Amino acid sequence: MKDVQSEKDERMVPLKKVGIKGLKWPLKVQDKKRGFQYTVANITISADLHRDLRGTHMSRFVEVLKNFEILSPKGIEDILIEIKEKLGANSAHIELLIPYFIWKESPVTKSESPLEVCAKIYAELSDSYKIYTGVKVPVHTLCPCSKEISQEGAHNQRAEVDILTRSKKMIWFEDLIEIAESSASCPIYTLLKRPDEKYITEKAFENPKFVEDVTRDAALRLEEDERIEWYRVEVTSFESIHNHQAFACVEKGWMN
Amino acid sequence: MKDVQSEKDERMVPLKKVGIKGLKWPLKVQDKKRGFQYTVANITISADLHRDLRGTHMSRFVEVLKNFEILSPKGIEDILIEIKEKLGANSAHIELLIPYFIWKESPVTKSESPLEVCAKIYAELSDSYKIYTGVKVPVHTLCPCSKEISQEGAHNQRAEVDILTRSKKMIWFEDLIEIAESSASCPIYTLLKRPDEKYITEKAFENPKFVEDVTRDAALRLEEDERIEWYRVEVTSFESIHNHQAFACVEKGWMN
Amino acid sequence: MKDVQSEKDERMVPLKKVGIKGLKWPLKVQDKKRGFQYTVANITISADLHRDLRGTHMSRFVEVLKNFEILSPKGIEDILIEIKEKLGANSAHIELLIPYFIWKESPVTKSESPLEVCAKIYAELSDSYKIYTGVKVPVHTLCPCSKEISQEGAHNQRAEVDILTRSKKMIWFEDLIEIAESSASCPIYTLLKRPDEKYITEKAFENPKFVEDVTRDAALRLEEDERIEWYRVEVTSFESIHNHQAFACVEKGWMN
Amino acid sequence: MKDVQSEKDERMVPLKKVGIKGLKWPLKVQDKKRGFQYTVANITISADLHRDLRGTHMSRFVEVLKNFEILSPKGIEDILIEIKEKLGANSAHIELLIPYFIWKESPVTKSESPLEVCAKIYAELSDSYKIYTGVKVPVHTLCPCSKEISQEGAHNQRAEVDILTRSKKMIWFEDLIEIAESSASCPIYTLLKRPDEKYITEKAFENPKFVEDVTRDAALRLEEDERIEWYRVEVTSFESIHNHQAFACVEKGWMN
Repeated sequence: MKDVQSEKDERMVPLKKVGIKGLKWPLKVQDKKRGFQYTVANITISADLHRDLRGTHMSRFVEVLKNFEILSPKGIEDILIEIKEKLGANSAHIELLIPYFIWKESPVTKSESPLEVCAKIYAELSDSYKIYTGVKVPVHTLCPCSKEISQEGAHNQRAEVDILTRSKKMIWFEDLIEIAESSASCPIYTLLKRPDEKYITEKAFENPKFVEDVTRDAALRLEEDERIEWYRVEVTSFESIHNHQAFACVEKGWMN
Repeated sequence: MKDVQSEKDERMVPLKKVGIKGLKWPLKVQDKKRGFQYTVANITISADLHRDLRGTHMSRFVEVLKNFEILSPKGIEDILIEIKEKLGANSAHIELLIPYFIWKESPVTKSESPLEVCAKIYAELSDSYKIYTGVKVPVHTLCPCSKEISQEGAHNQRAEVDILTRSKKMIWFEDLIEIAESSASCPIYTLLKRPDEKYITEKAFENPKFVEDVTRDAALRLEEDERIEWYRVEVTSFESIHNHQAFACVEKGWMN
Repeated sequence: MKDVQSEKDERMVPLKKVGIKGLKWPLKVQDKKRGFQYTVANITISADLHRDLRGTHMSRFVEVLKNFEILSPKGIEDILIEIKEKLGANSAHIELLIPYFIWKESPVTKSESPLEVCAKIYAELSDSYKIYTGVKVPVHTLCPCSKEISQEGAHNQRAEVDILTRSKKMIWFEDLIEIAESSASCPIYTLLKRPDEKYITEKAFENPKFVEDVTRDAALRLEEDERIEWYRVEVTSFESIHNHQAFACVEKGWMN
Repeated sequence: MKDVQSEKDERMVPLKKVGIKGLKWPLKVQDKKRGFQYTVANITISADLHRDLRGTHMSRFVEVLKNFEILSPKGIEDILIEIKEKLGANSAHIELLIPYFIWKESPVTKSESPLEVCAKIYAELSDSYKIYTGVKVPVHTLCPCSKEISQEGAHNQRAEVDILTRSKKMIWFEDLIEIAESSASCPIYTLLKRPDEKYITEKAFENPKFVEDVTRDAALRLEEDERIEWYRVEVTSFESIHNHQAFACVEKGWMN
């Protein structure tokens, strides 16, 4: 059976990435507090393509993932090593977006419930290996301006803190989630009884934050963590008095 | 050239709807205050299919729309009449989802800005003709429970009021938008200066509403409008202290 | 602490549904062939609200779900019974959308890989209990008209078969997936090697189907299943020669 | 009224971007062939924030857009100049995503219909001004491997060609759309009659292309255009035999 992909390509255009996107994959993920949790990852996986090859063998990306049952830094690197070898590529890349649950106790009644965040892994292997760990965490922000200028109340809303980090050592998703939540006006919860709701309303009111504030506070926390070589923080607020979003972002390097 | 669609179908299964979805169409829409506005509709259009015909001629749906440049109740009915005729169908249906702008002045500084809402038309023609008009409007809700139990502040958030109505006479989108906005804790705006933000914060604080309240207040307004034969209201609140939504809905007929 | 939700409501408007949407929940699901699988459900849960109560206690929906770890017909009914009791409601409703994997062997090389489909459960409890089981399954369709009129080739595309059923006895998701896949031109797979790709290309070419054909073939299969009291089938095809979708739908009852 | 945003910030963290996202805006866009067309843009607009300022005045972004009625390269630059001035920023950025219609004649019957593509503008002003023009165009691809190994037929599907370019001179969206369409197996159309469908089926069958082929062919065309200083091409194929996407990408610079 003819191998069209392996034909010599005369156009001589090397491709940066060739691969597959939107691949859903059942996955077991190590959890800092509870051992393991099970989830469904959305995977993008790719490799570069040499200028004189017509195509990549796309099925090999799926074959390499066949035994990918547990998420671990070592497992991710092994996948990229195998991709590079099987496809004769110079570089290989993978991205995973993962619904990830943290089980939280509500602040007063200590009612436990699961909160879903989006966990992210991105890794690339060329001459060196780099792995990025991230989270996108829903939080609560209360507007300092609205509080200051109004006789009573202050507009507040759901916001998202999106953190991506590169590190030498493994970073737990939980560590980044803690930074995201503690940088906001208040964390959010799936289950809150009335005493909890009172606590959260009052806590947020005492702790007003612009998206700019959340971004800076998260950045300062990430600067302190010696494992982290690089980071990017983007905070998006679903403004409750507008139909658009406010956002702010910062990347490692602003100290220079 | 053989007409496969017109082949006799032996399975004898009549189909309720056959048609096309996700058709984007540039459209001019009559505006209550400013004459006209231009937008891009997302159209679903279909007809039933007789049990002994193998297929519909899908291209005819697009052909019928070819001169559809202005949205009007009469134009919609004409499209459905033509669909029924060209396809020999017993019933024809169309749905349009339309980004629609209302130009609003902010409450204090009277700054004008456009707010996008989703306008909706649904129509069906079988023995009789029915047309439905609807809107999905972003608004602001402030939680009565949170206000009552907390020393200061109250959680609030962006919410959506989704109204669909059937009427004998034409209903302006603006009429339904006004009902949606006046049923919430406060309307929202694209442009607000500080005196406006103060006003809105305080107004919402004085006017707390659960999704249940917004739903009921909108329903009572719709009951009063004699043009409206049927309606459905669904209010969804993007809870700022949770990562899920709260919702409530009601349909005409609860009085019985 | 004051209970605002329990205040008497003077508007006297009973609400059809009040509840929460977009609640993500980790779940273990019974699998016809492999025992169990783990997934993340997207849950909508609600109850009606009496006309003289101001609000529902939304946190109770989450409390009722607290021990919801395994999906089963009995478990779903128990949740609705508890909702009705705790909220003093006349009716309770739940909907679950679930990423669900089927492990399939490719047709020639017998390579195994997981394919994600969307599984659906909807249940309501008022005077009686009704449970609906459904799936949305990606498949392949090849156009009979394009094949007939063209010298070579035929346009084909990814399509989705969306089936919802109500039954007295439990229906496996796998049973409905099998109906969806066998009604299309060909099933689709996550991992295909070249002999598999050849097989599928040729099989689809020999088995051309309009969305109308897929819809009718699925309907006839569902009519034959004596467990099924009611069904709805909707097939949507992501037309490869257009930028819109073609669709067809049918519901139980067309025989009358 | 106190100006909280203008407070001195002690954290000394400059922010890369602060602004608003998801702002919908009615817009008139110059059209290469038909004069003008009207559309609804989705706008992201931002500026950097000095390390000793607490917050940006978000309302000024909307104020600057108030007279933004027609899309033009000069208008975009003027908006960024005004943002920089009003906010005292070092850099300002804007991104617009625009539903844009091209009116195409079908290949044989010359039936005219509108096809929606996504047009994109991105611009940034710091010491210098850079403007990027892009399009995301739906096309048809037919798999060369499937054609080669199968006795009859070949799987094909809808794909998207995403092109972004930076140029000194203005680039028409139509110029990039032409490159995207001519790089695929075949363009797609909103309205096709049977002779057109036959033509397209046969043309695609004679012109099989992997995503890698489409990417390279588009890259070579963009290299030839002397106005273009930089480009990126990403082609994504909604594989009709899988439930995931295949993709390939390349950026200017591969010749080195």
